Amino acid sequence: MSVPDYGRAFALWRGAAPGWQAYTRHAFVEGLRRGDLPRANFLHYLRQDYVFLIHFARAWALAAAKADTLNEMQAASATVHALVHQEMPLHLALCAREGIDAAALEATPEAPANLAYTRYVLEAGYSGDFLDLMAALAPCVLGYGEIGARLAGSGGVYGEWIDTYGGAEYQALCRDVGALIDGALVHRLGEGWDGLPRFTRLSQRFATATRLEVGFWDMGLSGA
Amino acid sequence: MSVPDYGRAFALWRGAAPGWQAYTRHAFVEGLRRGDLPRANFLHYLRQDYVFLIHFARAWALAAAKADTLNEMQAASATVHALVHQEMPLHLALCAREGIDAAALEATPEAPANLAYTRYVLEAGYSGDFLDLMAALAPCVLGYGEIGARLAGSGGVYGEWIDTYGGAEYQALCRDVGALIDGALVHRLGEGWDGLPRFTRLSQRFATATRLEVGFWDMGLSGA
Amino acid sequence: MSVPDYGRAFALWRGAAPGWQAYTRHAFVEGLRRGDLPRANFLHYLRQDYVFLIHFARAWALAAAKADTLNEMQAASATVHALVHQEMPLHLALCAREGIDAAALEATPEAPANLAYTRYVLEAGYSGDFLDLMAALAPCVLGYGEIGARLAGSGGVYGEWIDTYGGAEYQALCRDVGALIDGALVHRLGEGWDGLPRFTRLSQRFATATRLEVGFWDMGLSGA
Amino acid sequence: MSVPDYGRAFALWRGAAPGWQAYTRHAFVEGLRRGDLPRANFLHYLRQDYVFLIHFARAWALAAAKADTLNEMQAASATVHALVHQEMPLHLALCAREGIDAAALEATPEAPANLAYTRYVLEAGYSGDFLDLMAALAPCVLGYGEIGARLAGSGGVYGEWIDTYGGAEYQALCRDVGALIDGALVHRLGEGWDGLPRFTRLSQRFATATRLEVGFWDMGLSGA
Repeated sequence: MSVPDYGRAFALWRGAAPGWQAYTRHAFVEGLRRGDLPRANFLHYLRQDYVFLIHFARAWALAAAKADTLNEMQAASATVHALVHQEMPLHLALCAREGIDAAALEATPEAPANLAYTRYVLEAGYSGDFLDLMAALAPCVLGYGEIGARLAGSGGVYGEWIDTYGGAEYQALCRDVGALIDGALVHRLGEGWDGLPRFTRLSQRFATATRLEVGFWDMGLSGA
Repeated sequence: MSVPDYGRAFALWRGAAPGWQAYTRHAFVEGLRRGDLPRANFLHYLRQDYVFLIHFARAWALAAAKADTLNEMQAASATVHALVHQEMPLHLALCAREGIDAAALEATPEAPANLAYTRYVLEAGYSGDFLDLMAALAPCVLGYGEIGARLAGSGGVYGEWIDTYGGAEYQALCRDVGALIDGALVHRLGEGWDGLPRFTRLSQRFATATRLEVGFWDMGLSGA
Repeated sequence: MSVPDYGRAFALWRGAAPGWQAYTRHAFVEGLRRGDLPRANFLHYLRQDYVFLIHFARAWALAAAKADTLNEMQAASATVHALVHQEMPLHLALCAREGIDAAALEATPEAPANLAYTRYVLEAGYSGDFLDLMAALAPCVLGYGEIGARLAGSGGVYGEWIDTYGGAEYQALCRDVGALIDGALVHRLGEGWDGLPRFTRLSQRFATATRLEVGFWDMGLSGA
Repeated sequence: MSVPDYGRAFALWRGAAPGWQAYTRHAFVEGLRRGDLPRANFLHYLRQDYVFLIHFARAWALAAAKADTLNEMQAASATVHALVHQEMPLHLALCAREGIDAAALEATPEAPANLAYTRYVLEAGYSGDFLDLMAALAPCVLGYGEIGARLAGSGGVYGEWIDTYGGAEYQALCRDVGALIDGALVHRLGEGWDGLPRFTRLSQRFATATRLEVGFWDMGLSGA
């Protein structure tokens, strides 16, 4: 199948990240698709993902603080709002159905792979600027979109998870984020941004974050 | 009239800030109350206040990034959302009625007093933590609440501005922010927070930000 | 006389900053040159400059934290070291001769113009990256170099101050900082950096910091 | 043998960190003591440690930027200076003797355990304040001191490494850093700092950084 179109920077970053296939076609993902991923691993992943989302929301809030235009600020703050007031409550509801209550969820000890990833993203944002944050956040947002698009319609016990990311709403979000990134690059670096050293450095950020996504799935599979 | 109750930290900070009366009973404020503030000064203030709001929203976004609990993050991100998706559009509408369009508003050159204030708040947040941000943000949020409560019902040509800050909705926001601050202090410093050197330092931040609010009104009056 | 050569970015920034002459040929500077600046104003300036230096050293430390190469880190950390272990002690000694002891110096209340400038620089650094810091720091470092070079040999009661900045050691530092900036631009943006929107934004940072330098001299002259 | 005295906060943090023994008595450390650690693992560790030192120096530079007193700033900037102008050149020399040149050293790809640790420390510093940085930096600085003190005199092929950290100079540095931390706590939180929630949170930071030190030794042993 074809790769979804989330803009030009994503296409370039994706092509230059050695770990992209290892991430988006990870055994954990295949287990979700076939429906044979053990429930215990999925729940371990869900718990860690909740802690991840907290830091992810912090990183988008930092993006709003570092935005250069009103449009960037609105896009970033809308994402924070959606994460904090919609996605995290949904996560809570999903976990509650599995017998994990809010207190247990919030008390989840952070796995090393989780900590490595979230702190990498936040530090990229604090040390760098809006573009550094976008490059570090993109593998998660857009990678889940690509996985969702590929797995859409697989059904099975993980069909709900798959449909969340493969659905029209999330796919539209991915296209919006892709456009936000392309616009931010032009705004700062001009039309020839893909030829600048700055872009090479951003590609490295994307590749590192992709590597950390692989570690996150590994953590989910190993249950550690 | 009595001072509105926005919590314990506010009462202490307010009492310890030498410039509090100079800020909340500034000639600019009295001009709003009596309705004899020249329109040109009000418009100059409105334009600068729009630029101020952008940085103010950035500071609240930084607060969301530096929050320590989900509750703090939700409160901060809801404030960003309200600023970016409600207060700034309202500002745009109000200015449009006065013949200042969006492009003119966004192109407003930052007055030195504006720049001094906004960068002080943001730097406090970046250098320090959530509490430093709250202490630097409080004079604006809660001072406008106190001014609004005192001027409520004054009517006159600035009645709309007065009613915004004196109204029930904004007063409720001030009580919420006051509770957020008191809760954040207990969460980090325990019940005896008001006796710690950390609190003295926060009082100094509040006092400095209050001094910068005086400078902001001065700028409004002088038109420079 | 000719303008000293502190590199290509400086030449471009300097040419694009409307306030450059107002800063480098300010009445305060002319008073230093002619020797008729009242002593009280000079001492007021010296006290504020000490507080300024503390924040200036913090900003260079932040530059070391945000450096991208070992060379940038070494240059920034050497500057911090020189400021903290040499320039600030010298300042202390100079003030001591004037009867201002260390305790009095450290207790200096920050003037608004001082606060505006230092927080602008630090916030530029926290919000942005190494280049934003360099653009915000350059007017001070290199402007003093240009002033020193022009005033060198004027003698008079302020001859010691003039010789510090006009002397070979400080002039060499200015050339080093200029080269650091040009190198940092090429490293991130390639050889065509002067044609990118990013550079326009950096020029605006330089111009704003220049405007704040004018405010600093104004503060020195007015004694407020 | 007795534990070295690096101050009160260290004693409390050390006692509350579940992983402290796992870190300071790790198989990698025992291999250094007995001299039977394979050379390849030591060299893998050395390479990664060089990359670590760069980020470690960045973190100390951030501490200088976030210092609250001149004394804190001088202590932090002196550490950066020592790291950048002494320890890193020594590392380069040691590696050169092993046939690893500067270019190879600087090109070392960051191992996940390295990345996790350094970004955790830097993010703690950016998100929090000077105390957060100290708590995150302490396990490395003071843990190496404790290991050095215990292994001192073991001799063997790793005797030079052991003597660096067990020697009088490094032990004095540890006592200075311990005093800096205790002083910073009193300065901000008063004499009763060990009873405040803030201190509990700092202890968690220390414990997390300790856990990441264990991961660093694991990485050294596994060669991955």
